Amino acid sequence: MSETPFDVTTPDKAIFLLRNSLNLALHLQNSRESVEIRNALNRILSKNIVSHINLPGFNRSTMDGYAIKAEDSFGTTDSLPTYFEVVEEISMGSKPGFELNPGEAAKISTGGMLPESSNAVIMLEYVEQISKTSIEVRKSVAPWENVVRKDEDLKMGKTILTKGHRIRPQDIGILAGIGKLTVEVYKKPKVAIISTGNEIVPVDELPGLGQVRDVNSYTLGARLLETYAIPKYKGIVKDDKYLLESKIKEILQKKEADAILISGGSSVGSRDITLEVLNNLGNPGILVHGVSVKPGKPTIIAVVNDIPIFGLPGHPVSAMVIFEVFIKDLIGWLEGHNVELSFNKEIEAEIDSNIASASGREEYIRVLLYKKEEKYFAKPVLGKSGLISNMVLASGFVKIGLNVEGLDKGTKVKVKLF
Amino acid sequence: MSETPFDVTTPDKAIFLLRNSLNLALHLQNSRESVEIRNALNRILSKNIVSHINLPGFNRSTMDGYAIKAEDSFGTTDSLPTYFEVVEEISMGSKPGFELNPGEAAKISTGGMLPESSNAVIMLEYVEQISKTSIEVRKSVAPWENVVRKDEDLKMGKTILTKGHRIRPQDIGILAGIGKLTVEVYKKPKVAIISTGNEIVPVDELPGLGQVRDVNSYTLGARLLETYAIPKYKGIVKDDKYLLESKIKEILQKKEADAILISGGSSVGSRDITLEVLNNLGNPGILVHGVSVKPGKPTIIAVVNDIPIFGLPGHPVSAMVIFEVFIKDLIGWLEGHNVELSFNKEIEAEIDSNIASASGREEYIRVLLYKKEEKYFAKPVLGKSGLISNMVLASGFVKIGLNVEGLDKGTKVKVKLF
Repeated sequence: MSETPFDVTTPDKAIFLLRNSLNLALHLQNSRESVEIRNALNRILSKNIVSHINLPGFNRSTMDGYAIKAEDSFGTTDSLPTYFEVVEEISMGSKPGFELNPGEAAKISTGGMLPESSNAVIMLEYVEQISKTSIEVRKSVAPWENVVRKDEDLKMGKTILTKGHRIRPQDIGILAGIGKLTVEVYKKPKVAIISTGNEIVPVDELPGLGQVRDVNSYTLGARLLETYAIPKYKGIVKDDKYLLESKIKEILQKKEADAILISGGSSVGSRDITLEVLNNLGNPGILVHGVSVKPGKPTIIAVVNDIPIFGLPGHPVSAMVIFEVFIKDLIGWLEGHNVELSFNKEIEAEIDSNIASASGREEYIRVLLYKKEEKYFAKPVLGKSGLISNMVLASGFVKIGLNVEGLDKGTKVKVKLF
Repeated sequence: MSETPFDVTTPDKAIFLLRNSLNLALHLQNSRESVEIRNALNRILSKNIVSHINLPGFNRSTMDGYAIKAEDSFGTTDSLPTYFEVVEEISMGSKPGFELNPGEAAKISTGGMLPESSNAVIMLEYVEQISKTSIEVRKSVAPWENVVRKDEDLKMGKTILTKGHRIRPQDIGILAGIGKLTVEVYKKPKVAIISTGNEIVPVDELPGLGQVRDVNSYTLGARLLETYAIPKYKGIVKDDKYLLESKIKEILQKKEADAILISGGSSVGSRDITLEVLNNLGNPGILVHGVSVKPGKPTIIAVVNDIPIFGLPGHPVSAMVIFEVFIKDLIGWLEGHNVELSFNKEIEAEIDSNIASASGREEYIRVLLYKKEEKYFAKPVLGKSGLISNMVLASGFVKIGLNVEGLDKGTKVKVKLF
């Protein structure tokens, strides 16, 4: 499109402006719910989890063998064995109803509970059965050898997981282990998607000549699902300022969404309407118009009554890049994710040809990944950013920083998969 | 546990044996369904997708400017401008109802449809409006400059996506673009989870001394969800061969699952019962008993009536490692995923201390990832494999290969996140 000149904002500054215009603490305070741990995968904790018990809660054997008092085995060697009297066999899952006296042993399985006053397990392979009730032991054991002590896995009062943490399978495991069946999490952010543009028709309609189907609602909706947000599909709005305004007002008034994405028609006319509408809806209004990101320059970022609103470029590739650069983080803030150390789905690869890029803007190059001799290579997928098929061909993006002028063949890059 | 000697199988051989004992083609043939594209994220295509239309379907402008015949601009320069008569302004989303004659131009926006016989767009910035109906052009354009041709994005008959492909957001976008609202995919594999062991109690019960809650059903269930499978929680079975046998038979007879995971109690007694049951259920029965993987050695792999059945170690960490090494791939086979080039969630990091490992087995070391000066480091999380808390402390696994004896500090490793 012909770029009517506007001052572009760097991604860092745009993120700073957006973050400073939102009252995230208030949003999160009003955005909590309880979920069963079976349904808690990938949700974000809204409270620290503190263990109210010791785990395993009893002294547990890690081996099949004999529970003894370690002291009774001291000095024992292959040539100087010690003899024990076997008083009992401990059943799995029950508390031994006796105490070991010096010189006594009890048969125990992995996972079994040690009897009172025993403090070690001697492995089966160092034991010879002499009679029904006596064994010969040919190795000494240290106190607590082959035993998990009753509070070794988890001590009562210990913080297991912290607020802002995204719940993984093993976290669900430890919650199950301490009997915590529901957890407090932040609600998933709801994000409204509006498509604008006179040329856009719903996907179930046959486009006439000059018309295209609404691709962006679908790619954005799927990216939101991947980001653990809930897409709210609000359909297509013609390039008409009153229609667009009333659609956004309705979403704001009904509190249907925590953020709004307006996927622009591709024309300047469409963008101008979005600008005018966002300027008039409330404070602070438009924060950013134009970002130094390619593709994706004609992006609009606004906040109205604490609800972030994005005017995204109409080209599907540009919209996806802007999602990556801004909206993914925004979703993280809205769901209370502590992103101090979060991991993107990235693959390290080698660029297989030279790529030019102008400095002064972040550029996102689509690449196809392939593997040769156990190494990944990234081949740039060239072509107009309006083509959807190129986006399907690609495996991911490579980011070229603001002040980098292109990449030489052979450069190691991180490919953000998409 | 005391390892009663058994011949261990290498992971590669175990995978080979398992794969060869399953009729995956038949399984997949009976495992298809249609889903709406909005719900198709991460599903696996069971058919190639061929475009039945051209995209965009019309010659589309990529700029705001004027549609002309490129030939009319040939020879034009800044000092030798050409003049055009502006005959119309093209509305977005409609077919221009006229044809351009030589010397004529039509105003057009990005995304607009070019009129018949025009083949280029001259950008607004090279144009000066002389009067209401005439413009001065100061640059020549090549044929098809600033235009996406009607079949440039997608040609009718072209294969867009192939059978076995996992559907990404941009794939949903192109499906929307061609108006394909449902797709044929493979069904998600259903996987039954049984916990065994006399010491295991349901998570909502208060464990007595000597008892532990059923952690593995929860970690395995969550890992299955992450792997796009459907967990079927079948509860806890005591260490009793008749109970276990009838539970498995019921699942097989009712065809409730495409695979069964039996998470063993930690004792040898529990494992022996699983072995005996799996030996008697049907053909081919037990394929592997013991794998050269640490932790995870006492794993049992069986196939009964084309249903794969795993006897997993009882320790949560071991069960998760075995999931990573075998079950993730198995789910991929069962859902028809073409894994020629699939990407694990991996982070490249540097090991921050020496790690010892015996050769002759694959070893999986839990590590904690941290970042220092833009680099990732992996710190080994030591401790008994029976501890759940260590698994929660860790960010992922580092694999030490079958024939590698430990890793030196500073070695670059790939951390499989979990």
